[in-house]
Amino acid sequence: MFLLNCWYVAAWSHEVQGTDLLSRKLLGEQVVLFRKESGGVAALVDRCSHRFAPLSMGRREGDCLRCMYHGLVFDGQGECVEEPGRKRPSSGIAVKSFPVVERYKQIWIWMGDPALSDPSLVPDCHWQDDPNWRSIPAYIHYKADYRLILDNLLDFSHLSFVHENTLGGSVSIAETKPKIEVTDSAVKITRWYKSEPELAPYLRGVTDLEGPIDRWNIYELFVPGNVFNMDSGSAPAGTGAPEGNRVAEALQFHAVQIITPEDERNAHFFWAYAHNFNLESSNLTERLAARIQEGFEEDRNFIEAQQKVVDESGDDPMAYIFVDAGLTHGRRLLASLLAREKNINVDA
Amino acid sequence: MFLLNCWYVAAWSHEVQGTDLLSRKLLGEQVVLFRKESGGVAALVDRCSHRFAPLSMGRREGDCLRCMYHGLVFDGQGECVEEPGRKRPSSGIAVKSFPVVERYKQIWIWMGDPALSDPSLVPDCHWQDDPNWRSIPAYIHYKADYRLILDNLLDFSHLSFVHENTLGGSVSIAETKPKIEVTDSAVKITRWYKSEPELAPYLRGVTDLEGPIDRWNIYELFVPGNVFNMDSGSAPAGTGAPEGNRVAEALQFHAVQIITPEDERNAHFFWAYAHNFNLESSNLTERLAARIQEGFEEDRNFIEAQQKVVDESGDDPMAYIFVDAGLTHGRRLLASLLAREKNINVDA
Amino acid sequence: MFLLNCWYVAAWSHEVQGTDLLSRKLLGEQVVLFRKESGGVAALVDRCSHRFAPLSMGRREGDCLRCMYHGLVFDGQGECVEEPGRKRPSSGIAVKSFPVVERYKQIWIWMGDPALSDPSLVPDCHWQDDPNWRSIPAYIHYKADYRLILDNLLDFSHLSFVHENTLGGSVSIAETKPKIEVTDSAVKITRWYKSEPELAPYLRGVTDLEGPIDRWNIYELFVPGNVFNMDSGSAPAGTGAPEGNRVAEALQFHAVQIITPEDERNAHFFWAYAHNFNLESSNLTERLAARIQEGFEEDRNFIEAQQKVVDESGDDPMAYIFVDAGLTHGRRLLASLLAREKNINVDA
Repeated sequence: MFLLNCWYVAAWSHEVQGTDLLSRKLLGEQVVLFRKESGGVAALVDRCSHRFAPLSMGRREGDCLRCMYHGLVFDGQGECVEEPGRKRPSSGIAVKSFPVVERYKQIWIWMGDPALSDPSLVPDCHWQDDPNWRSIPAYIHYKADYRLILDNLLDFSHLSFVHENTLGGSVSIAETKPKIEVTDSAVKITRWYKSEPELAPYLRGVTDLEGPIDRWNIYELFVPGNVFNMDSGSAPAGTGAPEGNRVAEALQFHAVQIITPEDERNAHFFWAYAHNFNLESSNLTERLAARIQEGFEEDRNFIEAQQKVVDESGDDPMAYIFVDAGLTHGRRLLASLLAREKNINVDA
Repeated sequence: MFLLNCWYVAAWSHEVQGTDLLSRKLLGEQVVLFRKESGGVAALVDRCSHRFAPLSMGRREGDCLRCMYHGLVFDGQGECVEEPGRKRPSSGIAVKSFPVVERYKQIWIWMGDPALSDPSLVPDCHWQDDPNWRSIPAYIHYKADYRLILDNLLDFSHLSFVHENTLGGSVSIAETKPKIEVTDSAVKITRWYKSEPELAPYLRGVTDLEGPIDRWNIYELFVPGNVFNMDSGSAPAGTGAPEGNRVAEALQFHAVQIITPEDERNAHFFWAYAHNFNLESSNLTERLAARIQEGFEEDRNFIEAQQKVVDESGDDPMAYIFVDAGLTHGRRLLASLLAREKNINVDA
Repeated sequence: MFLLNCWYVAAWSHEVQGTDLLSRKLLGEQVVLFRKESGGVAALVDRCSHRFAPLSMGRREGDCLRCMYHGLVFDGQGECVEEPGRKRPSSGIAVKSFPVVERYKQIWIWMGDPALSDPSLVPDCHWQDDPNWRSIPAYIHYKADYRLILDNLLDFSHLSFVHENTLGGSVSIAETKPKIEVTDSAVKITRWYKSEPELAPYLRGVTDLEGPIDRWNIYELFVPGNVFNMDSGSAPAGTGAPEGNRVAEALQFHAVQIITPEDERNAHFFWAYAHNFNLESSNLTERLAARIQEGFEEDRNFIEAQQKVVDESGDDPMAYIFVDAGLTHGRRLLASLLAREKNINVDA
C-alpha cells in the first residue's frame, strides 16, 4: 500500500540526460523517463499500448518517444502522434503519462490523480542545490519494504550498534530519549547528546574539531513522498549549540534522504548529505560521502536481512520496547494518511 | 495451451548423435531423445517409472536406455526389458514413449495421440536438405510464449524498426499493406516492396547486386507445429519478379523457422535460412547466417522484454492497429484449431 | 512433515568455535548457534524479538548474544538481559531457545517439546570420536527432501549403477536380496556379497588386500534424527567374516551418516566414514574420505535431479519393484512415528 497523491522522487536529474531512456519501477508501475529535446522531462508508462513492448527499448525523437517494435510515436503526454502506414494514428492508443516536476536536482513524479498534482506540494529540499551547501547526489537500491527504511530513520538508537564504527560511535545515542513531535504529515525528532568525549567515527580526522562536543540530530520525516530532512552536527561542548548558537568551529550538516517504493518489497533510496563548511574542498565532500555511504550500506545490510526474516514470519507480532516511540508514530501517521487517501478516492 | 496432435520439431538431427542423450522440455513435458545403435531415434518421457530419476542421466546400451539409479533398462518404445535381480521385469513399469520421424535434418515428435501420428503430415521443409539450397541449421532459445513469436512473424512491419540496421532497412515495409490469405491450417502473407533504392542492410556487400530493387517476402505459417516457410528475395527493379520472373541476378532465399513450445513461457526456435545462389561458397552461407542471427537476436530481445511486460499486465487488453491483420488471423486460426482438437479429444 | 521430538545434528562442533555465529535452517526454522565464553553451545531462533533482525548479525558477548540492530542482549536461554536505555529489560521479549547436547564431535538439537529432550536419547555415534577409529567430519548440502536421501540409503542396489566406478563396482550388489529387520524406531539391513572377484573401486590400491573377497554392508537407519550407522568391509573370501570372524587383513569401516532436514526441499548431510586399520596413517584417512566424497557427490547429483522431477510430477505414483523393500519399510516407519508424535502432541 502506497500513498498515491504526493510527489515522489523518480530519479536524479543527471540520470535522465540526452537521448537516454530511463526505465524504473515506481510504486509497482514501470515508468520510462526521457528528456525532451526542448528540455523538460516526460514520464510515461513503460509499455506500448499496442503489443506491450517496453517503450524504454524505443528511441527519443525530438520531444517524443518512438516504440521500436512497430514504430508508434508518443509525445510527452502519451498521445500517439504517428502510426506507420496511416495518415492519422488510430484512436484509443494513448499511453498513460505522469505529471513531473524537476527541482533540487531531482525529477519528482505524481503517480496518483493528475488533477491533484500541485507543484507547490514538492517539499523543500533546497539544500541539494543551494550554493551555501555542498553534497553529492547518491542512490542506493534496497531489497526491502520502504516502511522498514522509515522505521530505521525514525529510531536512531541503531546508530550505537549498526553504525558503531561509522556514523554512531557512542552508546549515548541509544540511551537518549528523543523529543518527538507529530504533525498531520510529518514526524519530527530532536536528539541531543551533550558533552560527548569524541566525534562520531566518520568525522574523525576530517576537520580539526576534537571532543568534548555537543552533538545533535534534528530531523523531520515528511510522510507524503517519504522525504527525510535532517539538521545534524557537532559543536565544541558548552558553546550553546542546544540554544541555537552555532559557532564557527561547529560541523553542520543537512541530509536529505528520500525513499520511493519500487514495489511492496523493494525501494529506491536517494540521498545527499550536505555540509556548509570548507565549501572550497571538493575532496572533503567526497571523503564525507564515502564514509556516509559506508554507514548507509550498514543499514541496507541490516534492513535487507530483516526483510527476509519478516517474509518468513507470517503474522508474528514484533515486540515493542523503549526506543520504538518514533517509528510507532511514523507507522500510525502513514496508516492514517493511507486511510484518508482511500476515503478521498472513494468520494471522488 | 498447445496443439497436441501434430508434428513438432524436437531437435536437429545433429543434436542426437552417438551415445549422447538429449533432454529437452517440449510442450511442458520433459523428453529424453537418444539414437539407437541401429540408427533410429527414440523419444521417452525423461523420468524413470521407478523412483523418477531422469533417464537422461542414464546410459544408452544398444537400442535401449538404462536408468543409472537402480539399473532398469527401457527400449525405444519405453518397455522395461531388464530389472536387476529378476529374470523378468516387473509389469506395469513401462515409460511413455513418443512417435518420432526424422526428416529434413530434423527430429519431429508427436506429443498427442500416437494413433494419429501419420508421418505424411510432416510439413514440407525440404529446402533444409535439398542440394539446390544451402543453409546452416540453427537454434535460439526463447524465454517467451510461442504465440508472441508467431505474432512477430505474422507482422513484418517490425522489420522497419526492430531490424532497421539488419533485416529491414526501409520504412516501406511498415507502410506496405500485405496480402493475407487464410486456409484451414495456415496463414499466407505476401509482401512486395517495389523499386526500393537499396538492398536490406544484411545483404549489402554480400553480392554485386545494387538497387533499385524489387523486394519480396512471401510466406506461410503452418499453424500445426508452428512451421514458417518463406520465399524472399531481391531482384533488379522492373525485371518482373512480381510476375514470377526471377532473373539470374536475383537473390533468392527460402527460410524455414519452426517454433516448438517448451512450456507456456518458453520456446525453441529452429531456423535455417537457405539461399540458392553461389552454392559453391560456404563462406557466403556463413556470412549470411551470422547477419540473420544478428537480426533474430533483435527479435528475441524485443519479444523476451515484451513477455515480461505481458506477465505484469494481467488482463489488460492490447490495442489494435492497422498492421495487426496478419497476427490477428494467426491467433484466430490457432484458437479454432485448439477448440477443434479439444472436441476431437472429447469425442475420442 | 518432520519428527520434532528427537535429537537432530545441527552442526559439527568445529563449526561453532570462538565468537563466530552459525546461522542454519533446521526443520524449517532459522537457528543461530553460538559457543558461550564458558564453553557450552546455545541455540536460539535467529530472529530478534524486537524488529526481527537476524541475531546471527549480532555479537557474542560473554555467554550472551547482542542483537546489533538496536542492542538487545539475550542469554543462552533466550532471556533478554539488557535493553539499552532501561535499567531492566521490557518483559515479554525473550526469544525461543532450543535444548542442545554436544556429543561425538557434533552439536545435537531438540526442536520439539523441550520437556522431552532427554540427553540419553542421543543415539550412539561414538565411532566419530573413538580413538580406535579414524575419520574426517564432513558435510554436504542437499537440495532435496530428506526422505529421498533415506530412500537412497535404504536401497543399496544403486551402488551397482550410481557408484559403478567408486563405492560399488559389482552388479552383485543390485542382484543381492538383503535381510531386512524392522524395529519400532529403526530399519536394519544386512547385505553380504561373497567371493567377489575384486574390491570396490574406491578401495583399490588403498591397501594390499586383493580379491576374491567377502564383502558386507550391515547398517541401521535410526529414524528419529535420521541417524545411519553402518558396519561395512571386505575380508579375504572364506575367512569367516559372515560368521563374525574378522581377520586382521580385513578392511573394516564404520560410517555414520546423519540427515537433518533444512526444510521440505533441502537437507543437511553430516558424515564421517571411519576405519579401524592403519590408524597411524592420516594420509589413508584423507584418501579414503576423498574417494567416498566422490561417491557421495554421485548420490547428490542423482537425488537432486530426482527431486526436480518429483517436483514436476504432482501426485503421479512411483512404480514398485523388487529392490524397494528396504525403503518401503523406512517410509512406513517414518509415517507411523509421525502419526504417533501427532497424537502425543494432541494429548499434551
